[in-house]
Amino acid sequence: MRIAILGGDGFVGWPTSLHLSNLGHEVHIVDNLSRRWIDTELGVQSLTPMDSIQERCRIWKAETGHQIQFHLLNLATEYERLKAWLAEYRPDAVIHFAEQRAAPYSMKTDRHKVYTVDNNVSATHNLLAALVETGIDAHLVHLGTMGVYGYSSVGAPIPEGYLDVEIDTPTGKKGMEILYPTRPGSVYHMTKSLDQILFQFYAQNDGLRITDLHQGIVWGTHTEQTRRHEQLINRFDYDGDYGTVLNRFLIQAAIGYPLTVHGTGGQTRAFIHIQDSVRCIELALSDAPASGERVRIFNQMTETHRVRDLAEMIAGMTGAKTVYLPNPRKEADENELIVKNDQFLALGLEPIRLQQGLLSEVVDVARKYAHRIDRSRVPAVSAWTKDIAKRVDRDPEGKRLRQVS
Amino acid sequence: MRIAILGGDGFVGWPTSLHLSNLGHEVHIVDNLSRRWIDTELGVQSLTPMDSIQERCRIWKAETGHQIQFHLLNLATEYERLKAWLAEYRPDAVIHFAEQRAAPYSMKTDRHKVYTVDNNVSATHNLLAALVETGIDAHLVHLGTMGVYGYSSVGAPIPEGYLDVEIDTPTGKKGMEILYPTRPGSVYHMTKSLDQILFQFYAQNDGLRITDLHQGIVWGTHTEQTRRHEQLINRFDYDGDYGTVLNRFLIQAAIGYPLTVHGTGGQTRAFIHIQDSVRCIELALSDAPASGERVRIFNQMTETHRVRDLAEMIAGMTGAKTVYLPNPRKEADENELIVKNDQFLALGLEPIRLQQGLLSEVVDVARKYAHRIDRSRVPAVSAWTKDIAKRVDRDPEGKRLRQVS
Ligand SMILES: NC(=O)c1ccc[n+]([C@@H]2O[C@H](COP(=O)([O-])OP(=O)(O)OC[C@H]3O[C@@H](n4cnc5c(N)ncnc54)[C@H](O)[C@@H]3O)[C@@H](O)[C@H]2O)c1
Ligand SMILES: NC(=O)c1ccc[n+]([C@@H]2O[C@H](COP(=O)([O-])OP(=O)(O)OC[C@H]3O[C@@H](n4cnc5c(N)ncnc54)[C@H](O)[C@@H]3O)[C@@H](O)[C@H]2O)c1
Repeated sequence: MRIAILGGDGFVGWPTSLHLSNLGHEVHIVDNLSRRWIDTELGVQSLTPMDSIQERCRIWKAETGHQIQFHLLNLATEYERLKAWLAEYRPDAVIHFAEQRAAPYSMKTDRHKVYTVDNNVSATHNLLAALVETGIDAHLVHLGTMGVYGYSSVGAPIPEGYLDVEIDTPTGKKGMEILYPTRPGSVYHMTKSLDQILFQFYAQNDGLRITDLHQGIVWGTHTEQTRRHEQLINRFDYDGDYGTVLNRFLIQAAIGYPLTVHGTGGQTRAFIHIQDSVRCIELALSDAPASGERVRIFNQMTETHRVRDLAEMIAGMTGAKTVYLPNPRKEADENELIVKNDQFLALGLEPIRLQQGLLSEVVDVARKYAHRIDRSRVPAVSAWTKDIAKRVDRDPEGKRLRQVS
Repeated sequence: MRIAILGGDGFVGWPTSLHLSNLGHEVHIVDNLSRRWIDTELGVQSLTPMDSIQERCRIWKAETGHQIQFHLLNLATEYERLKAWLAEYRPDAVIHFAEQRAAPYSMKTDRHKVYTVDNNVSATHNLLAALVETGIDAHLVHLGTMGVYGYSSVGAPIPEGYLDVEIDTPTGKKGMEILYPTRPGSVYHMTKSLDQILFQFYAQNDGLRITDLHQGIVWGTHTEQTRRHEQLINRFDYDGDYGTVLNRFLIQAAIGYPLTVHGTGGQTRAFIHIQDSVRCIELALSDAPASGERVRIFNQMTETHRVRDLAEMIAGMTGAKTVYLPNPRKEADENELIVKNDQFLALGLEPIRLQQGLLSEVVDVARKYAHRIDRSRVPAVSAWTKDIAKRVDRDPEGKRLRQVS
């Protein structure tokens, strides 16, 4: 297959590109490298030393003989170039990772909110409109998030995308299938909730074939393919905006900083290892819906944990201490999260568990690159509202975190 | 009150501005005049001769002594200017009409799809982000549409915004209130469905006070205030993109063109007279939700009709003939539409009915300005999909409608 990987320079996109290239597919990465620019904006860098995308593709070719082509293109602002690109390459499948993906970044300032909405909505919608216009019948696989449902809902198991409801009509109750109702908790999550509606419309009106993977928090650094050469290494974000809770704990443990738990740490989150994520994408890809079918939605996660239990797990492995800080997010202190992931298990996924894999992250990644850690970047500084911002502006060492600007 | 009317140069925005100015409010119109540019793009013009917005404001001042200020600003692309404008004028209320509002225009070409999504989503989101950032606690009243629910749903009465559903949880069934699920039928309607999610998020996260009016098709030209001077007249769109089904029937009748019914004409639509629309906005304005309350949603309509019954009504008044043409839209041929509008009736709305008001539209508007009609602009030319486009490219007189470009 010829596969376009939009956002293929990113944390999930890059190992996906290698995985699919290794399987013999013709892989094209389309990316505007905005994520690298955001590193520059924030003054942060991947813990792991990451080469340019051009260099990475060169090494991959040298190492495996497989070619991955890179195309610099902004999906959100270059509609005509996107259309021309699709018309020229006519991919059989398109995997869409190309969005601003950090909730804290999306809540940093009004400028970041506006950027996240404009970038993510336009990227997704431009892609859909261009697929219709060029008449390309590619299977579109998109990465969404379980976060669209809000973490503080009624405690119901999150089904795979849809909900059956009953509606009163003049002639009695009638059943109706609806998209599982969302209640996003950040501007970033909100854009994924908007994406769902875009997908529903284009599947219904134009018969586009779409799979939306509602992914949990991806952890882990290496996959079989990124391990093949030091310069193929994946990125590892640990800063307060892009670092997920797990990555930040790992880094804190590695440098002897206390593990910073927000609120009571009772928030339950869903997780998946990067190797499993890549595998799920492969599975989803090969199981395309037919034209006219509703959007296929999978929950892409393998286990759930409370944040304080994660801290405990890492503290147990490393001897780190834990501190509790005010939560910069607006969310329930404690929530249950029961997620259905029957579809991927049925397709044969055999998950890598945190309990087994975490130690290697501590040793092979966090400690190995500890000399590259900038400790001032570890605390989370983006607050969800102006009121919350007033409460959360000191780090556990007592220093002010936010610049008053 | 100081009221900002975004999109105040438009068909509903202009009479709303006059109505509220007449009540003694300080009215500011913010508009980028994009709708006038679209007239130019399409080579169409309002049936009624419409002056520039500056001239209209001058006449209003001369006629009533009340001042309406006009501000040229693009909500979607000038975020910083919007924020500065809000910070300077600090309105008590904001009425938001400023979106691309024609479903056929939104489906014309991929460029029009992209424009509609970018314009509408960014306009609404920029406004929300700027209100939060400036800390202005204005009541935001937005105009949505009943079309978000899709016209071909299960035949249930459309409630005002919300639906109670039951969800299975490990501890038994739990009730949950959700936004009434949408299934938009065009890119335009889809943007209103996206707006709903933006509103829900900003009401929840930032305590913004928002009322969303789900409006039916607005008909009628004059209000008490637009009647005061010939140059205060409202716009009347009759072209295939912006002309609503009723306006196009009126014009067809006036020039002896057959009334063109799409499909079986069994589509049921909701209607409201412009005078009632303006009055509803006044009512909604004075009944603001508190901060922290959910978005208040009203259905703003007064009656429903099937398209073929409308054609019959107008044929009865004018002697026009009716023809049935293939439907350029992708929708069910026949649908029921039962809409709840209890909230406005409770607030004292006394509707103007089509049966009474329609004749004056025929005589005072359509026939009066019939010499200004460009008959080549009457047919609907935007098709919902490429397949449909092939079927609907001839007008009832047998001429080709679409340019092959
Ligand atoms: N990492 C996770 O834990 C996680 C969890 C759930 C869902 N997801 C989703 O998976 C996808 C990929 O996540 P990631 O962690 O790899 O993010 P990432 O930020 O590392 O990668 C995203 C890539 O998309 C590119 N991009 C962004 N906007 C673009 C545009 N307009 N045009 C072209 N390229 C653009 C960026 O430059 C970057 O290379 C995202 O959509 C994210 O929301 C990720
Ligand atoms: N007319 C109807 O039958 C009807 C029915 C239901 C809902 N509505 C809604 O009511 C609102 C007003 O409808 P209308 O018929 O008056 O439409 P209209 O097109 O006549 O007016 C919209 C106005 O908004 C302005 N505008 C658009 N984008 C803008 C931007 N980015 N920045 C600044 N100004 C911008 C346009 O120039 C125009 O003056 C719309 O949101 C529409 O969706 C209308």
